[in-house]
Amino acid sequence: MTGRTRSYAYLGPSGTFTEAALASLPDSEGAEHLPYATVPAVLDALRRGDVDAAIVALENSVEGSVPTTLDELATGEPLQIVAEVALPVSFALLVRPGTSMADVKTVASHPHAQPQCRRWLADNIPDAEWRAATSNAEAAQHVADGHYDAALAGSFAAARYGLDVLAEDIHDVADAVTRFVALRRPCAPPEPTGSDRTSAVAFIGEDHPGALLEILTEFSVRGINLTLIQSRPTGAGLGSYLFWMDFEGHVSDARVGEALMGLRRVCADVRFVGSYPRADHVRPEIRRGTHDADFTEAAAWLESVRTGHP
Amino acid sequence: MTGRTRSYAYLGPSGTFTEAALASLPDSEGAEHLPYATVPAVLDALRRGDVDAAIVALENSVEGSVPTTLDELATGEPLQIVAEVALPVSFALLVRPGTSMADVKTVASHPHAQPQCRRWLADNIPDAEWRAATSNAEAAQHVADGHYDAALAGSFAAARYGLDVLAEDIHDVADAVTRFVALRRPCAPPEPTGSDRTSAVAFIGEDHPGALLEILTEFSVRGINLTLIQSRPTGAGLGSYLFWMDFEGHVSDARVGEALMGLRRVCADVRFVGSYPRADHVRPEIRRGTHDADFTEAAAWLESVRTGHP
Repeated sequence: MTGRTRSYAYLGPSGTFTEAALASLPDSEGAEHLPYATVPAVLDALRRGDVDAAIVALENSVEGSVPTTLDELATGEPLQIVAEVALPVSFALLVRPGTSMADVKTVASHPHAQPQCRRWLADNIPDAEWRAATSNAEAAQHVADGHYDAALAGSFAAARYGLDVLAEDIHDVADAVTRFVALRRPCAPPEPTGSDRTSAVAFIGEDHPGALLEILTEFSVRGINLTLIQSRPTGAGLGSYLFWMDFEGHVSDARVGEALMGLRRVCADVRFVGSYPRADHVRPEIRRGTHDADFTEAAAWLESVRTGHP
Repeated sequence: MTGRTRSYAYLGPSGTFTEAALASLPDSEGAEHLPYATVPAVLDALRRGDVDAAIVALENSVEGSVPTTLDELATGEPLQIVAEVALPVSFALLVRPGTSMADVKTVASHPHAQPQCRRWLADNIPDAEWRAATSNAEAAQHVADGHYDAALAGSFAAARYGLDVLAEDIHDVADAVTRFVALRRPCAPPEPTGSDRTSAVAFIGEDHPGALLEILTEFSVRGINLTLIQSRPTGAGLGSYLFWMDFEGHVSDARVGEALMGLRRVCADVRFVGSYPRADHVRPEIRRGTHDADFTEAAAWLESVRTGHP
């Protein structure tokens, strides 16, 4: 986390929501923004050291988690989350100049965009067919090239591809956001801010009754709220799976440290994925007995009991 | 725990089960055995420094815990358990020489002895009336003095009071034992043996839903079995109560230390009452992930994660 960030990899092409999220990161200013075609390509560029940092979508509040990103961060060569960005999900319908709503027979977008606009599409252009693109920006490019009639993308992509905004603020679910994470190669976590989130992956080597309850208890007994939990197969065979977990607090907090050590002890393996400031600036309510000072006092008391010197 | 034990206080008079338990303690040999009339008197003698050690009954497996001892150790000036003794519960019916079963109209004993022999009394001397004594030995003394016809006491008390054993091995419940504890003024606990028990008291300042579950979770999440739990009022008003808890393990065990720190953090107060070798020599089954080595490894891992130096 030291030194200037000189280059950022992101899911291209230019004009994606990921690029818009990247532009909101303070350390992206003055850095080179390098587009890559897929999430794995973005992450591999960072792993190889071709770039200093990367940004990818992790979670979409309408569609749930983004499986590729979770799997890559959980089981690929380790990377570390150092920041997050939440962007409202809001699409624009981009068309070539002169196109009217009646002319739209095909609509292209990234597969994640389509279900978020399904109702709007059914209400406004019910006869248009949907086409998949690797990104919304690529969909815009296809429209500019004349392959499709319209693209669902960020309105910021219109100018870049010489398109017009035919409709704006398209989304089925109000207040939906996409969550992006900024990544580094493994490093010391950013300093705690008092409003932090931690991501970790717990691996279950052999499934057994109560495995999830066992993990959740490690958090609840220390008063830590989870903000996301997602089970995934590890690919290592039946009965072997993992839990991706996001939770309140910073790895430097005593309660978080003890919970992570608890996971480490009871799970087949644990991967720390990062502690970083929350995009929503929510400060957790710290439960009675789980402040750092409580842990410090308890440790001093235990020492006095063990040595017989009160 | 260092130095020779020169004097032991116990619940007298001579001939009680407590004296028999005391005789089984290795460090009682060569020490002066000083009888006191009540459990609080025994404990106060130790608190004042009149004796080096004391022994009292803590738990009777037929009648449950001995409330006075629990309350004294939980809320009186602190003392520490350093050893335990388990004696089979087995009474003798002691009479003056020449007395036959038909002559027995009154039977005296400590109130704890009566319910443990209720069925035997009903079957064998159904018309005899029971009388309370402050100890079974005192009951024997009363018989010797001619106040009562018979006493329920240890057979070892017969010779001491010039009585005969009219019946032996009296107990309603097979395998019942009384548990005694040896006490010291607060000190460093005896070394762990691999088969240890720890006693602690958790104070609930203000009752709230889930208070007991919260406490039990501190143990279960670290794989620690409780062997005794007993709630008692603290005397400090409604909603204020305590839990006496005995559990597997030694305060020097990592899992026990972390559980005690957890209690200390979430409870109004915690009193450590002692870690000492188990009388039954049972070695706990240590659950996956809760060995000392697991805690050490997890702490090293957390340190590497916090500093970013894997």
